[in-house]
Amino acid sequence: MAKKDNGTRVRDALRATAELPDPASSPVGPGKKDKGEKKLATAGERLDALQEALYAEGQPGPDGRSVLLVLQGMDTSGKGGTVRHVLGLVNPMGVRYKGFKVPTPAERRHDFLWRVRKELPAAGQIGVFDRSHYEDVLVPRVSGLLSAAERRRRITQINAFEKEVAAAGTTIVKVFLHISPEEQLRRLVARLERPEKIWKFAPSDVEARDHWHAYAQAYAELLERTSTDHAPWFVVPADRKWYRNWAVAELLIETLTEMAPRFPEPHFDVAEQLAKLKGDGVGA
Amino acid sequence: MAKKDNGTRVRDALRATAELPDPASSPVGPGKKDKGEKKLATAGERLDALQEALYAEGQPGPDGRSVLLVLQGMDTSGKGGTVRHVLGLVNPMGVRYKGFKVPTPAERRHDFLWRVRKELPAAGQIGVFDRSHYEDVLVPRVSGLLSAAERRRRITQINAFEKEVAAAGTTIVKVFLHISPEEQLRRLVARLERPEKIWKFAPSDVEARDHWHAYAQAYAELLERTSTDHAPWFVVPADRKWYRNWAVAELLIETLTEMAPRFPEPHFDVAEQLAKLKGDGVGA
Repeated sequence: MAKKDNGTRVRDALRATAELPDPASSPVGPGKKDKGEKKLATAGERLDALQEALYAEGQPGPDGRSVLLVLQGMDTSGKGGTVRHVLGLVNPMGVRYKGFKVPTPAERRHDFLWRVRKELPAAGQIGVFDRSHYEDVLVPRVSGLLSAAERRRRITQINAFEKEVAAAGTTIVKVFLHISPEEQLRRLVARLERPEKIWKFAPSDVEARDHWHAYAQAYAELLERTSTDHAPWFVVPADRKWYRNWAVAELLIETLTEMAPRFPEPHFDVAEQLAKLKGDGVGA
Repeated sequence: MAKKDNGTRVRDALRATAELPDPASSPVGPGKKDKGEKKLATAGERLDALQEALYAEGQPGPDGRSVLLVLQGMDTSGKGGTVRHVLGLVNPMGVRYKGFKVPTPAERRHDFLWRVRKELPAAGQIGVFDRSHYEDVLVPRVSGLLSAAERRRRITQINAFEKEVAAAGTTIVKVFLHISPEEQLRRLVARLERPEKIWKFAPSDVEARDHWHAYAQAYAELLERTSTDHAPWFVVPADRKWYRNWAVAELLIETLTEMAPRFPEPHFDVAEQLAKLKGDGVGA
């Protein structure tokens, strides 16, 4: 399929490759904060319009399309901030947010994809996974609780699952928010130093830093083995929050632009309905 | 319980009474559009801060509090617009939106509150019902499909249900968006005349106008019989969109201010964690 000239620039530049970019770099788009913030404001209007069309398209029936944004990244990489600043630009009616925590005992009694499947977006929605089924390959791997065979099995299952979801009309956009350990350190300290931010902190965040390299390795394997044409991974340099916001907004815009959602055609005679209304006695 | 001097002004003025206000009036707050829009921008910041505190408070455990905003009103009264312009002011992470449509065959095989209960907000969330269990007393009543006995039974059940939900920690705010039939006519015509708005129109919206007075009567009964201390109804004059947005934002702000959500206390030694981080070798 021929791609539009202008519609894959950000996706092409941020598509996951074997080498991760510098977390403080701008591989594409604005390089300075003031320009980035201005561009985000404009992006907001485009994203809002595209989301409204997707939502409208999805209203008539069960066959409409949807988008699923998967956000992954180390603690403090900005998953929550992305939701606030990027998804906050569109109508909440069309956004379905789900944050996945440590599985509950009840969830553990099911296959790891069970709880994820229930949260998939409906026609017309932009679903957002704040963490996801990828945690089930990352965390137990780093803790040494997942055998290599089971890890391979889960990766195969994830690829099959995402292929099915994509075939059912959901465009999957997976984003790895890539921060440096130095920036994480600054953000964790900042959380502890601001009383209204302490609630975001957990001592386990500090402990996880001892496993930074193990996590980085686990992510590298996932980015390589689960970045598919139907569910690609994008790596967003996330040390600078304004760049992260701009980049995720643009990834969504390019994706939605390519989907080209269309307002549904009326299934009734517009002129006839207008005539009825204008001849309407109630309140006239 | 003593009420704060300043914290119930909008709620007191908009609390449902036997007489409905003029749909174009401003019973409280700004009377002009420019002032109303300015005040909404300021309200947005307060609402955002309160919502963040509610969300934070709800994170530690299952016992946290939540808010449920129920939006009812005739077609075009602005339920969707309220979600966009008021809930759009806060972090999407903390908003759980649910639009209730005509019940599906599967939903009809259950009690009418079954599908509603599943959508209640979790600790820390602001739940938004765009239409609700009230439709199950309104629509079948106007269609003549609900006996008077069954109607009374459902009203009793709704009051008991809401009392239970409130006791479990959910503050319920029910808003009737009150528009005039003249304004509805203008809005329906506007939908038909704008290609990107036609999707919001259904011929049944025109038919429903023939039953305007029956709906008004049904609403009047509901406002009287289901406005309780634990789940009060507020009537928001909604002919002017900017007033509607301001009023709903203020109702939420007053409600959240009274709830006074608090950031959770850390359950760890902050100084110790800071010391650990600052002595941290990773990335240093």
